[in-house]
Amino acid sequence: MENHSDRWESIWADIQRIRAEAPLVHNITNYVVMNTTANALLALGASPVMAHAEEEVGEMAAIAQSLVINIGTLSAPWIAAMFQAGEAARRNGRPIVLDPVGAGATTFRTATARKLLAELSPAIVRGNASEIRALAFDERSTRGVDSAYESEDAAKAADRLSGQYRSVVATSGAVDLISFGGMTTRVFNGHSMMPKVTGMGCTASALIGAFAAVNPSARDAAVNAMAVMGIAGELAAEHSPGPGTFLVRFLDALYLLNESDIRERVKVRES
Amino acid sequence: MENHSDRWESIWADIQRIRAEAPLVHNITNYVVMNTTANALLALGASPVMAHAEEEVGEMAAIAQSLVINIGTLSAPWIAAMFQAGEAARRNGRPIVLDPVGAGATTFRTATARKLLAELSPAIVRGNASEIRALAFDERSTRGVDSAYESEDAAKAADRLSGQYRSVVATSGAVDLISFGGMTTRVFNGHSMMPKVTGMGCTASALIGAFAAVNPSARDAAVNAMAVMGIAGELAAEHSPGPGTFLVRFLDALYLLNESDIRERVKVRES
Amino acid sequence: MENHSDRWESIWADIQRIRAEAPLVHNITNYVVMNTTANALLALGASPVMAHAEEEVGEMAAIAQSLVINIGTLSAPWIAAMFQAGEAARRNGRPIVLDPVGAGATTFRTATARKLLAELSPAIVRGNASEIRALAFDERSTRGVDSAYESEDAAKAADRLSGQYRSVVATSGAVDLISFGGMTTRVFNGHSMMPKVTGMGCTASALIGAFAAVNPSARDAAVNAMAVMGIAGELAAEHSPGPGTFLVRFLDALYLLNESDIRERVKVRES
Repeated sequence: MENHSDRWESIWADIQRIRAEAPLVHNITNYVVMNTTANALLALGASPVMAHAEEEVGEMAAIAQSLVINIGTLSAPWIAAMFQAGEAARRNGRPIVLDPVGAGATTFRTATARKLLAELSPAIVRGNASEIRALAFDERSTRGVDSAYESEDAAKAADRLSGQYRSVVATSGAVDLISFGGMTTRVFNGHSMMPKVTGMGCTASALIGAFAAVNPSARDAAVNAMAVMGIAGELAAEHSPGPGTFLVRFLDALYLLNESDIRERVKVRES
Repeated sequence: MENHSDRWESIWADIQRIRAEAPLVHNITNYVVMNTTANALLALGASPVMAHAEEEVGEMAAIAQSLVINIGTLSAPWIAAMFQAGEAARRNGRPIVLDPVGAGATTFRTATARKLLAELSPAIVRGNASEIRALAFDERSTRGVDSAYESEDAAKAADRLSGQYRSVVATSGAVDLISFGGMTTRVFNGHSMMPKVTGMGCTASALIGAFAAVNPSARDAAVNAMAVMGIAGELAAEHSPGPGTFLVRFLDALYLLNESDIRERVKVRES
Repeated sequence: MENHSDRWESIWADIQRIRAEAPLVHNITNYVVMNTTANALLALGASPVMAHAEEEVGEMAAIAQSLVINIGTLSAPWIAAMFQAGEAARRNGRPIVLDPVGAGATTFRTATARKLLAELSPAIVRGNASEIRALAFDERSTRGVDSAYESEDAAKAADRLSGQYRSVVATSGAVDLISFGGMTTRVFNGHSMMPKVTGMGCTASALIGAFAAVNPSARDAAVNAMAVMGIAGELAAEHSPGPGTFLVRFLDALYLLNESDIRERVKVRES
């Protein structure tokens, strides 16, 4: 595994820019994780806003620097708002991040995620291996919103999905895969306690929204955000007996991240 | 008070099975507690999923091992989804847990809880004393979602409700009563800080969903889940100055529970 | 800065009454903060209830001691419920607190907040400087739900808004301004970590609801609640490395607040 010096410098530059500019990240996300993702964005230095009414999402997406769409607790009125917000973000040249939570578990989620992909061309899609396989290969999942696969098992699915929609695809797991243009970057940071906290995947998607707001390369934004998730997870796990303490320390770690944390810990194998 | 050796063995067997199988627990629950209950289910070892759209609840309930319906922040579209999900769970032979949050506080909640009881025949109903009395005796409550009574004050109401709908009725409080077939089991585990954290009752209902997914006896599932709630509460309270720390340690305790915690602490008086 | 002895006595009397009476505070609030505000109200000693269905909000508002309306994740059905609940609260003589989250960020929020102000005459409005300026002067905001101004920058706007709707206006920031009848009281308690946690403003509004339930003076209720927010924030920040720990300790601090904390820490400059 290589530890490219330009990678930690890119991550650290993004963090400094997020802290300095506090980009407004518009989230249309699920009820379960709204609080956690808002707190994670604030701890990192970004400014989160949640808005889902058709009457306002276009206006909100227009003043935001990026848009994160998460289908975790989907319903018809929210889908309409996702398309409206997505179109406003596109008109204003703002990057869109799509989190297809539970794709493969129900037809409704799979079909909605596909339609969002086709019509909004999100810059970045982040999901677990089951979700990425479901979208690429029409696989059904019986694990709800948890993955039945390792991320490597979705490497081909990620390549295919990326090619089909011209999106960067981030497949998260013990190793995170960031796939684009036939190339795959791997992020080895992270900790086994992360799947024991709800919404860590959704939080990764939200943080990608913050990085995409300051980094014009969607691929770099995804790699940098996943590395920061993993590093904060490692720091949080150090003295955490269980997932309750872990989440508290994860938010602290995002807030406290410094240059040497990034430089010494980042484990990315560039494609 | 007796401390039956078969009780702790039953609890420990259920926990081991939940950790090994990670049963999918489908929750249609309220906005306030979604995050907490999802984290509690994950900490215990189960796999939570939240889904409420009519377009998908039938499919989700069909792949889940149990269904938890909680009326804490009710609205008409969610009620329709509760019935759809409940019917799918019944068709697939999955146990249903009903949490009638705030029954007695408004006509809407009381009437909805009654209709869910009558049409879905949930295996287990868990509520506080005010809620159980409201459903059994048509009492009005003016305490919102908090109880105006001790659980013993609802013992007769619980018997009646259990007989009427053939459901196990768990009435939670300082002592938890699990009523079925004219018999009452009492769980003496717990801590006075638990009512100072929002959603501890809802979390009990969610954990019952996990136990019911692995234990074919609805009564045992309810008793075991209430004992585990109480034991985790006792462990969490040990070094908690207030409810903020308590909730963090409660999630840690669920994650860390081991055989001796259960064996040494369980305080159940069998009926 | 003066530290009036009657101020800490008023605060402490309110806290004791909240703990003794556990007033029912009905919240129609946003998805992001529901859990945090419910936990803060419980930690303080109040009894929170969240209900938003048109079928029940009138009944719930009628049994509650106060109503808190927060437009943080607005949609049309919720607006209808806000008006229904507000009218029931007015009919029953219960104080209403309005939190105009994100007013100025979208036309939908600004217009809804104005209509709630005009039709419900809330006893107290609490917002940040951008929100108060948006409502008083029609200013647009591009910072989402965060403020682009210091609270002092909204002093004139707060006076104007207060005069127009005969409401107490609490403008929160590093210094909190409580404006009514051309007079302004300033609360200097608080800590710079508070804006790094989502929903601290919403929590202030919820706590104002608890204080307004026991204190007949809307102005005193607002001043006392803002002082308690600030004092709990100072206590929480003492050993908090970051916002994760801070929120946990903030809830502990609300639960543990004692007479000497209030007497020694309160920093209020009376108007």
